[in-house]
Amino acid sequence: MSALPLTGPTGAMAIGAEPVIGTGEEIRSVDPRTGAALDPGFREASAEDIERACALAQRAFPEFRALGAERRAEFLDRVAELLDARRDPLVERAHTETALPRPRLTGEVSRTSGQLRLFAAELRTGAWQGARIDPARPGRAPLPRADIRQRRIALGPVAVFGAGNFPLAFSTAGGDTASALAAGCPVIVKAHQAHLGTAELVARTITEAAADTRMPEGVFSQLVGSGEVVGARLVQDPRIRAVGFTGSRSGGLAIAAMAAARPVPIPVYAEMSSINPVLLLPTALETRGAELGTAFAQSLTLGSGQFCTNPGLVLAVEAPGLDAFVKAAADAVAADAGATMLTPGIADHYAAAGDALAARDGVEEAARGSRPDSAACGHARLLAVDGARFAADPELQTEVFGATSLIVRCTDTSELTEAVEALEGQLTATLHADEADHPLAAKLMPLLEERAGRVLFDGWPTGVEVGHAMVHGGPFPATTDPRSTSVGTLAIERFLRPVAYQDVPSALLPAELRDENPLGVWRRVDGEPGRGASSADTVP
Amino acid sequence: MSALPLTGPTGAMAIGAEPVIGTGEEIRSVDPRTGAALDPGFREASAEDIERACALAQRAFPEFRALGAERRAEFLDRVAELLDARRDPLVERAHTETALPRPRLTGEVSRTSGQLRLFAAELRTGAWQGARIDPARPGRAPLPRADIRQRRIALGPVAVFGAGNFPLAFSTAGGDTASALAAGCPVIVKAHQAHLGTAELVARTITEAAADTRMPEGVFSQLVGSGEVVGARLVQDPRIRAVGFTGSRSGGLAIAAMAAARPVPIPVYAEMSSINPVLLLPTALETRGAELGTAFAQSLTLGSGQFCTNPGLVLAVEAPGLDAFVKAAADAVAADAGATMLTPGIADHYAAAGDALAARDGVEEAARGSRPDSAACGHARLLAVDGARFAADPELQTEVFGATSLIVRCTDTSELTEAVEALEGQLTATLHADEADHPLAAKLMPLLEERAGRVLFDGWPTGVEVGHAMVHGGPFPATTDPRSTSVGTLAIERFLRPVAYQDVPSALLPAELRDENPLGVWRRVDGEPGRGASSADTVP
Repeated sequence: MSALPLTGPTGAMAIGAEPVIGTGEEIRSVDPRTGAALDPGFREASAEDIERACALAQRAFPEFRALGAERRAEFLDRVAELLDARRDPLVERAHTETALPRPRLTGEVSRTSGQLRLFAAELRTGAWQGARIDPARPGRAPLPRADIRQRRIALGPVAVFGAGNFPLAFSTAGGDTASALAAGCPVIVKAHQAHLGTAELVARTITEAAADTRMPEGVFSQLVGSGEVVGARLVQDPRIRAVGFTGSRSGGLAIAAMAAARPVPIPVYAEMSSINPVLLLPTALETRGAELGTAFAQSLTLGSGQFCTNPGLVLAVEAPGLDAFVKAAADAVAADAGATMLTPGIADHYAAAGDALAARDGVEEAARGSRPDSAACGHARLLAVDGARFAADPELQTEVFGATSLIVRCTDTSELTEAVEALEGQLTATLHADEADHPLAAKLMPLLEERAGRVLFDGWPTGVEVGHAMVHGGPFPATTDPRSTSVGTLAIERFLRPVAYQDVPSALLPAELRDENPLGVWRRVDGEPGRGASSADTVP
Repeated sequence: MSALPLTGPTGAMAIGAEPVIGTGEEIRSVDPRTGAALDPGFREASAEDIERACALAQRAFPEFRALGAERRAEFLDRVAELLDARRDPLVERAHTETALPRPRLTGEVSRTSGQLRLFAAELRTGAWQGARIDPARPGRAPLPRADIRQRRIALGPVAVFGAGNFPLAFSTAGGDTASALAAGCPVIVKAHQAHLGTAELVARTITEAAADTRMPEGVFSQLVGSGEVVGARLVQDPRIRAVGFTGSRSGGLAIAAMAAARPVPIPVYAEMSSINPVLLLPTALETRGAELGTAFAQSLTLGSGQFCTNPGLVLAVEAPGLDAFVKAAADAVAADAGATMLTPGIADHYAAAGDALAARDGVEEAARGSRPDSAACGHARLLAVDGARFAADPELQTEVFGATSLIVRCTDTSELTEAVEALEGQLTATLHADEADHPLAAKLMPLLEERAGRVLFDGWPTGVEVGHAMVHGGPFPATTDPRSTSVGTLAIERFLRPVAYQDVPSALLPAELRDENPLGVWRRVDGEPGRGASSADTVP
């Protein structure tokens, strides 16, 4: 199947297979360079629109989850194929709505399609089902053992709230949507208000792919509206069985509270807030302080610092190498031209949060970059504070979403350790360490892994590889649920739950649990992993 | 090491390695046959006791989780060995406190030690860590791929609230404690008030095993007190990172609400409420209605029906076979002598809840057994209602903890299907089906697996096998978290979270993630499961 050319956004939501124009208040995305409202206007979903999307998702659910992994993989592959074919118009619209550079957005399309293909591949391995078989032991004394088998099944329809800073890879067809669909869960996206046009184009692409691959209507819908009204209704709808969210701490906490207060509570996977500490160990600083400072500033200012994994905190022990680091970083930050941020609101919040941080006792400004002349302008900023004050003032851990970072200067490694112990939960923690620093690194590692979802050495946290081993998650407040990741194949587990089958006749078992293992999936038989057939145990 | 003889309970809690007598209000367990308060008296833990248990757990945590799986397995094995060696005094005390028959309690000791040994074995396989390795691809274009590795680590100290109906297997050394310790989480148990003496004897055994195997002090403590005070303080303590609970719906919901309202919310695994529907399909009823009725009544009255998996609901289509089933079941229930229940309070609640169910519109009593003359007496009870009324009245799904069951008589399979669709979440769902029933069973299976953690054929739900494939869990209100199980090796996942390691030098990696795989654990390398070594990818 070839892809039809993509016409521009029309202001439509997607409710099942239908493009639907809402009837509520008009909402428009804004060109962050000019502040001008963009065409087309969108209108907020009515209660009936939400009802219809939920009813379709609920109706599609049994068929969708029963389709089998191969059929769902075809659907995901087709979405990927269409997104790649439509890269140019997607990049163009996203560029208009977010001011993110075209090369970055081009890469994001590939990341998004690559992610969909990775989940398709994971579906085909069958490993995601976690199949387990404990064969019957009819001869066991004092009681025979029943035949018990286990697999994971989908939770049900999932509501997805995408992120503003990744209009493609963490939005309508992003990791939450891809992993929920892979799991067999229909998805209803609440379109991000800052890139409504991009969201429409992507939703239309998913809807087309669903039709091309004959998915049941309702596996995907996208609604337009505010978080307070449309978002809240979705989270509270009894047919929604889980929520994926990427955004602010206040937004994530509001959703989590709503989900916990439902008559039937549901899991919320909210990725919220992280300042991503970077630890510079003494020998690394001594041998390459200035070099690290320059590289750090580059990571900090990348994409105006609008990454969940932006290095918003640097921890190090006082030494000449630290002075060299700070000088190089400050020079680079001062020379930074700044860039238009995602929205005027984000730029305002960035300025206010940075000022609040700078105004805390003991915080000094080490450098400040320029700001461009646009409606949503941000400038890079480097602040510094001493270690004792950092450990004593939790407010210094408030995330400033954008290119601001706080350098914590500790008097010795014991103060450094105390600062680490005071850290809240994080998505990442980074160590720059030379060989001579490894004994200290070995002591810090356990503290860091207790506080972060990913620990990395001698790099910068801003790149999040999509693979099997990635964890993009971490303890609160990085996320509301540290037991999972929103990036990488493990993300599918968020939308599954285990079911056991006891003495179920073979013909009624799901294929992946039958003795002969017709799909050749990985299973644990009496605990032992393998891909072979199983048979009744001879062990009593 | 041999086991010292076990002296009787003294009224002590266990705070780290120390037996500690509380200073609060006196609490005693009661002989449910006589209502007499039992010696010794226990005293509620003070705020300082709770503080000390939490501080010790927190201090023990880094060392305990770093010990390595083999060392923790030795600890669990030693607990199992000591419990087996002390079977007789444990059974005797538990019998006094719960009135459960000695043979049943003897089996429960074996179940408890077997469970501990199963987790020890699971630790040794390493599979529980979910190790994943995505080797670096230095030559990948446009950007090289970093080396990323993943494993699961322990969440931190866990609070456990045991169940009254399994004073050994779901209490102080039960499944929650065994799986949390296996994961590397220190455990603080809130002793169950109905079997304080048994709880003390078991806690002492765990403490001894911890000393015998040189575990850090604080890996285990047990506190005495009410759920409202001691329980609430534990759940709200910032050092507690997860909760395991088995008990009433009101208790589970109160804990879940408290945990969600913490400044740092934590996961709660509460197993609460399930009526375990049993579906009798037409041909099975026709060919063996009476036989099924007798077997059902046996499962219903086992242990006075005091099982989470007690068959509290029977669903079937009107037919002569159903009449035969009801008659046989009613005869058996009427002939049942009853038995002393776990506590006078449970017996009162059982009587009141059964009366409330019997008083609902359209409910009729089909049979009632005798009740023995004891302080906590219960009698078996069989009620019946028609299918339309069942689907329309959610109150008919209220759990009556004890040997009461409701038979739902449906006019046809479509009414049966509607009744199934109306079901809340369950631990189990059972089908009795002959070959000719399989087409109907195939239609019902998806509805049942969406509503239950375990689906079983041609048996009774009351036996819960401890193995790799078991799921003892299910959608709300069966549990607060359907993504897990409280029985079987998968239960360990409740207390773990994934961490990724990016470009971490080999010497600083946990052993199970090093290329050479020195522990020989199962890992997914670039997604492919295996037990071999890994090496840098040659794929670009």
